[in-house]
Amino acid sequence: MAAEVICVGTELLLGDILNSNSQYLAQELAALGVPHFYQTVVGDNIDRVHQAIEIAANRSSILLFTGGLGPTPDDLTTEAIASYFNTPLVEYPQVIADIERKYAQRGRDMTASNRKQALQPEGATILPNPLGSAPGMIWQPRAGLTILTFPGVPREMYRMWRDTAIPFLKTQGYGQHPIYSRSLRFFGVAESALAEKVNHLFDSANPTVAPYAGKGQVRLRISARAASEVEATTLIAPIAEEIQKIAGDNYFGSDDDTLASVVGELLLQRGQTLAVAESCTGGGLGQMLTETPGSSSYFMGGIISYANRVKVELLGVDSEDLARAGAVSATVAQQMAAGVKAKLGTDWGVSITGVAGPGGGTDTKPVGLVYIGIAHPTGDLEGIKYQLGSQQERGLIRQMSASQALDLLRRRLNSRSLGE
Amino acid sequence: MAAEVICVGTELLLGDILNSNSQYLAQELAALGVPHFYQTVVGDNIDRVHQAIEIAANRSSILLFTGGLGPTPDDLTTEAIASYFNTPLVEYPQVIADIERKYAQRGRDMTASNRKQALQPEGATILPNPLGSAPGMIWQPRAGLTILTFPGVPREMYRMWRDTAIPFLKTQGYGQHPIYSRSLRFFGVAESALAEKVNHLFDSANPTVAPYAGKGQVRLRISARAASEVEATTLIAPIAEEIQKIAGDNYFGSDDDTLASVVGELLLQRGQTLAVAESCTGGGLGQMLTETPGSSSYFMGGIISYANRVKVELLGVDSEDLARAGAVSATVAQQMAAGVKAKLGTDWGVSITGVAGPGGGTDTKPVGLVYIGIAHPTGDLEGIKYQLGSQQERGLIRQMSASQALDLLRRRLNSRSLGE
Repeated sequence: MAAEVICVGTELLLGDILNSNSQYLAQELAALGVPHFYQTVVGDNIDRVHQAIEIAANRSSILLFTGGLGPTPDDLTTEAIASYFNTPLVEYPQVIADIERKYAQRGRDMTASNRKQALQPEGATILPNPLGSAPGMIWQPRAGLTILTFPGVPREMYRMWRDTAIPFLKTQGYGQHPIYSRSLRFFGVAESALAEKVNHLFDSANPTVAPYAGKGQVRLRISARAASEVEATTLIAPIAEEIQKIAGDNYFGSDDDTLASVVGELLLQRGQTLAVAESCTGGGLGQMLTETPGSSSYFMGGIISYANRVKVELLGVDSEDLARAGAVSATVAQQMAAGVKAKLGTDWGVSITGVAGPGGGTDTKPVGLVYIGIAHPTGDLEGIKYQLGSQQERGLIRQMSASQALDLLRRRLNSRSLGE
Repeated sequence: MAAEVICVGTELLLGDILNSNSQYLAQELAALGVPHFYQTVVGDNIDRVHQAIEIAANRSSILLFTGGLGPTPDDLTTEAIASYFNTPLVEYPQVIADIERKYAQRGRDMTASNRKQALQPEGATILPNPLGSAPGMIWQPRAGLTILTFPGVPREMYRMWRDTAIPFLKTQGYGQHPIYSRSLRFFGVAESALAEKVNHLFDSANPTVAPYAGKGQVRLRISARAASEVEATTLIAPIAEEIQKIAGDNYFGSDDDTLASVVGELLLQRGQTLAVAESCTGGGLGQMLTETPGSSSYFMGGIISYANRVKVELLGVDSEDLARAGAVSATVAQQMAAGVKAKLGTDWGVSITGVAGPGGGTDTKPVGLVYIGIAHPTGDLEGIKYQLGSQQERGLIRQMSASQALDLLRRRLNSRSLGE
């Protein structure tokens, strides 16, 4: 009972558009619990679409086509499907009427080429398109094989999927045992190191546990197939608990949590406020913090001290220290953090100064060297060194620097009792 | 001589990640003039990867794999390829040495699971990965078939493609008749409006002209197939010139130009400096400006005045005006811009204050309402209102606000003579 996605469009093979339809259908199939093992992209060529059908129809029982339903000659998905199954195309009058009505609404006449969109294989059911002129179809060309077609325009496809395709699939018995997932998020640990520690969980069949990594973060997703959300939660909870115990302080949150949102929650719990002083990130740390709606409750603002003069004049960094130790140093990071805390009158100050590259690196201060400063409510000052890898790109070094600063603050907020 | 892309990863079939690698490789193959008729996505399952190889190897001569090269048990692309062609995996010592060196740089020890990444089919050539621990390979398992593997992490894959794969493909005779492209970039005009004005160019066969849109920007790509770059440039230049003439001031740059880099060039030409004052964008404008390497020559820094108190105390916004007109108002935007210009001693000051949502909107100040302030070197002050659409998401409103501020500054820098 597996489904397979086939996207038709030469524009996909030229890289002109990103194939977001595949991701959408993949997510939807996963949520319905419909197995899905292959996706194919093929161009606007009838022989190659035939070949794609031949392969897919022999290994899957539902084929979901997107794209190639338009009025132009290169739109040939419907024609290719019908001819592969030796079925004639017939004109569906209700489609003609629908297109005429939509065009009339916009004060236009239906064009001759639109008539083509009313041609569907004999015996197919129309899958209505409320938002555009290209309808899809639902068709069983033979026992055990169902074909659904959708236009390539994402919002039209989404709407048709929700309005008609899902209800149809449910009548066919799909979606009885959907999959529920929970993602646990980690920072400060490599995917391989975390994976080794939780290795014994990867063989679990229900729930399953799978690792993902990207941009310094690691995610473990726990997925349970269950008849209800309550049942799924009961299956997921003990696994989540075990993983959190193993990961310790490297675990920072789940699902939609971000480092910034978790830091925000910890600050809210304490009723404390934060300001940032940024050099190499140029505002990126402030931006991350303010991605969280409601961040104005704890984030007061900051100073982007890109020029050294701004570090001295606005943040009160000692110009002799700056000359002696350099802008990228523990002492300057500390003074920046202390300076912004004092200037904005907050409980915490966090600073970042580093070499983001591609230029500006030296033997002693290579690209990727970053110092993060933390000024604590107690007056304690920290200036901590990170080497984020000299081969990395400027954008990633900046993003990693900001994430690292958030993570460091998170650990400090975690390790202190609320009373401090 | 066709190439085929096979992306391996259950996370793609679950819809956890968007398949941007396929688009990247599709664009690159098109640029090299390499035919490309199919893309396949398959999960982390050895039998199904075998089946995908069986199909692809019988219709294409170059197979490009992405994903499944990591250290965890579900990363099985290399193993599946080797076993399909009945070839043993052997350990490549230079890969072990490379991974050890990278881990040492970050002060970490290589884990046992990383050793797996050094296993490649006997006879394969390592495709080095400068940015990560997973190398790829280039391998001819039989005459007329070449396999290249890349990790799924996009930036690692891009780098390996550019550094090693393209030079290799060129030695194999690919890329003799490449397609050269130039992208023209526009801001402040809708895709449909621009498309209507340049409609007559869309039928051109060589060069071709195609429009793309996203996040407020529009791009027109002019692509020419030619024997040399000089010939392509000659074909592209008159079309580019015509389009620029039609688009006027909405055209801001080409290819890798960004609004921030173009603003930077204009400031450099004048020898002028800039500071920013940000409220709803929280640092995002500073971050955009500092994405451009070398931006420290003209961007001095800024003040993130997320809290109203910071607007008053650090930027000198009049607290009565703030109370009367509100933080999201033309007068506050003007005072923020003037304040940051004075505080940082720059030639220009730019400010943003707005309602990013999802909360905080009112009837008179709805979500998406943004004011941008500009303090000119002459002392002139502007406070300009934008309504960015109350249905948009917080992230998009913030990004559009920062882009809009850059575009406004660009137009002011363009419209004044250098002597001003």
